[in-house]
Amino acid sequence: MDRLTEIASHAREAANVLQTLSTSQKSAFLLAIHARLAAAKSQILASNKKDKDLALPLVESGKLSSSLYKRLDLEGPGKFDTMLQGIKDIEQLQDPVGKVAFANKLDNGLELYRVSCPVGVLLVIFEARPEVVANIAALAIKSGNAAILKGGKESFHTCEAVSKAIREAMEEVSAATFEEKEGSTGGDNNKAVKHLADAVQIVESREDIDGLLKQDKYIDLVIPRGSSALVKYIQWNTRIPVLGHADGLCSTYVAESAKLALAQTVVVDAKTTYPAACNSTETLLIHSSHLHDSSKFFPQLAKSLVDQGVTLKCDAPALASLQASDLFKDHQDKIQASNEEDYDTEFLELTLAVKTVDSAEDAIRHINEHGSKHTDAILTENEAEAKRFMAGVDAAGVFWNASTRFADGFRYGFGAEVGVSTNKTHARGPVGLEGLVIYKYQLHGNGQASADYGNEADGKKPYLHERIDVGEKETLGELARKRQRLE
Amino acid sequence: MDRLTEIASHAREAANVLQTLSTSQKSAFLLAIHARLAAAKSQILASNKKDKDLALPLVESGKLSSSLYKRLDLEGPGKFDTMLQGIKDIEQLQDPVGKVAFANKLDNGLELYRVSCPVGVLLVIFEARPEVVANIAALAIKSGNAAILKGGKESFHTCEAVSKAIREAMEEVSAATFEEKEGSTGGDNNKAVKHLADAVQIVESREDIDGLLKQDKYIDLVIPRGSSALVKYIQWNTRIPVLGHADGLCSTYVAESAKLALAQTVVVDAKTTYPAACNSTETLLIHSSHLHDSSKFFPQLAKSLVDQGVTLKCDAPALASLQASDLFKDHQDKIQASNEEDYDTEFLELTLAVKTVDSAEDAIRHINEHGSKHTDAILTENEAEAKRFMAGVDAAGVFWNASTRFADGFRYGFGAEVGVSTNKTHARGPVGLEGLVIYKYQLHGNGQASADYGNEADGKKPYLHERIDVGEKETLGELARKRQRLE
Repeated sequence: MDRLTEIASHAREAANVLQTLSTSQKSAFLLAIHARLAAAKSQILASNKKDKDLALPLVESGKLSSSLYKRLDLEGPGKFDTMLQGIKDIEQLQDPVGKVAFANKLDNGLELYRVSCPVGVLLVIFEARPEVVANIAALAIKSGNAAILKGGKESFHTCEAVSKAIREAMEEVSAATFEEKEGSTGGDNNKAVKHLADAVQIVESREDIDGLLKQDKYIDLVIPRGSSALVKYIQWNTRIPVLGHADGLCSTYVAESAKLALAQTVVVDAKTTYPAACNSTETLLIHSSHLHDSSKFFPQLAKSLVDQGVTLKCDAPALASLQASDLFKDHQDKIQASNEEDYDTEFLELTLAVKTVDSAEDAIRHINEHGSKHTDAILTENEAEAKRFMAGVDAAGVFWNASTRFADGFRYGFGAEVGVSTNKTHARGPVGLEGLVIYKYQLHGNGQASADYGNEADGKKPYLHERIDVGEKETLGELARKRQRLE
Repeated sequence: MDRLTEIASHAREAANVLQTLSTSQKSAFLLAIHARLAAAKSQILASNKKDKDLALPLVESGKLSSSLYKRLDLEGPGKFDTMLQGIKDIEQLQDPVGKVAFANKLDNGLELYRVSCPVGVLLVIFEARPEVVANIAALAIKSGNAAILKGGKESFHTCEAVSKAIREAMEEVSAATFEEKEGSTGGDNNKAVKHLADAVQIVESREDIDGLLKQDKYIDLVIPRGSSALVKYIQWNTRIPVLGHADGLCSTYVAESAKLALAQTVVVDAKTTYPAACNSTETLLIHSSHLHDSSKFFPQLAKSLVDQGVTLKCDAPALASLQASDLFKDHQDKIQASNEEDYDTEFLELTLAVKTVDSAEDAIRHINEHGSKHTDAILTENEAEAKRFMAGVDAAGVFWNASTRFADGFRYGFGAEVGVSTNKTHARGPVGLEGLVIYKYQLHGNGQASADYGNEADGKKPYLHERIDVGEKETLGELARKRQRLE
């Protein structure tokens, strides 16, 4: 067995044990990881210094960006403590595993339950920030998954030190956990303890990733967090499902009935608060009525943006509107003609493509053709139009009178964000812990044979198919207790 | 634009319209398809006769199986009516689109809704049975998806006739639908009518499929229904998500506390009622205590199977147990030694691999290594052991004291079955209409900017993150009415 197959198969063995752990057992692991990391702070920071010492000459010679160097640094004020607190926060979240989403009585004594369970083995690839190791390890363990991690090569020593502390914590607690576990034999316990040590593993090189992307027998989900080029490369080089987004080309459509002050607030927020973020607006769609009306709607909206340093790349009607306005005299450099590529470009800076449209239907068509299915907004006072837009735009987020910048797991209130997905299957938009679980069907019977069921006319028993009422996020145990009370 | 890109992009245009239709609009299309197919019965059967006339010589020369010929035949008793009734049944199902699964108040006047929506464009590949065109068309339209279909080449003329009737129904009703639609302009209506005609398209050749598997820009989900070889070929030759299962290698574990009569009933049902089905049991795991006990548990269980014509391929301990029994004298031909490959083989006939294990943990390990993650059962009177098995086995179905043959969308009570999936993401097990939808996040605001929210200490507004109570399968409209009543 080669090294990468060994890593992947060991992760699978770990996942097989992790999926059987209770919420409190998983919490014990998370708290132990927290404690080990806290205790290993000085060793981890020493490793981080090694990474920084290696990176500094590269920054000085211009081979590494200073922003990447900054992300690499774990010594910055509060960074280590934030990493530690993140583990405690994840430990406090609701366990996504073991929830019943659907239950159906096929017959008396033959009951079907759809129960959430971990996906299995995750391969997570990220850049630079070494604290992601602790964050992903916590998310994976909380949701009962094993994880193989690859950080940026610049942060390797730090990642290694963090993952060493995690492994030690897993070993320590698993020995204690499985001594108490009832019903399984000594040999099985020893195996479980051994396997759990491999719950979180790290790999170092890009070549390792190429090899692991072929391990579809063992790995269930790949989560790339990084540049568009990285995500696209991974999407094209594996048959394992990939959760992520390559691009964030968000649009905001200012409809005919939109109010100017609202549009100014929302569009300026959507464009300028963090231009490099994937949820920033890259294209402004403006209803043609605003270009030449007496209220100077569009020139005033444009002014709010230009005042914040935004360059507008406009189609011909929008450009003509601004060229006829006072704004143009002082800001010729920030008001430019657009070309076709601008509507397919994720600028990631203070540049905004502007396109004139004649209706919500035009806006929808433009977005469905040019957007990246991330997040798109309509600003309108017309509810019917807003609904048409939200139904017709094919994107993870469809917003009405709000900034695209709200598209974020923490802002949505998920407690944790695994990543942002523009997929059309499994998980879409900002993905919380729920993206790391799937479900299995449990069927509880007492000896039923399928051949006994069918049409009554043929002397068979008909299926009852009586839905069992399931509350939100109920476990099988909670459901059973509730049903007992009702009887 | 080449022909396949045209087909795929037209499907996308149709999907963009389909996703905006209401339940009653979709019902109108389904009922029109039903009526058109009923009216076109004689033309469709004439096309079916053409297919059969072409196929018959192939059957006679042994190039085509008679069972495939039988599946091709749409004239068989009740087959056409069953196809028609299927469309009405699907029309009656609950609309899977527009349901709110989660809602969160980020702030007063800033509310987030996770709403189900169609996946988009489906590519469905199936073999022989031409009535699948009508079935998939109905499932796709009910869930707001466009579909591109490829049936077996033997059924091409029938598929073509069925799809022609579907196209005519779509054209007829879409003209009527969009005349009434408020708020969009004439040009948009004409476009919508034109696009909807392409909601269901068929392609003919294997080469077409190879080309369509590259159309990941337009196609969102591939559903292969057919042989293991077909499914594997597709899984390996596209980066579009694939919903399906290549293998159905199901196991049943007879634990120490299992009752003999129950085991006989369940295992005989699981093995013999339809050996070619993917949910039939292929491996029997037997606890070692049953091999040589005074009750002759295993020889009696084996006898029930052998009496039904099953050949048992046994590991050494199981073989020894049977060789020492009376059964062996009369049935030497049906009691054989197994080899390692038998535990990785989907026999699809009356052959059962038998393996001796010493614990549920051994059974779980065997299944996780050799199974296909389809459906596996434990027969036991020990609830704790059943729970360990259901948590530890990584499969779409984990059954306790019931036959693996229950793993089926209709038996589960889903009303319709799109396919069976052994995926670890999106949809798993028998997949109903829910497998054809994903969700989008609607955010309803009144002009909020993200920069205004954050820590109170920094002078920002904190997020409320108040969960909005959502009932099961509620639409946004129903949710709004309920909240009004509560206020």
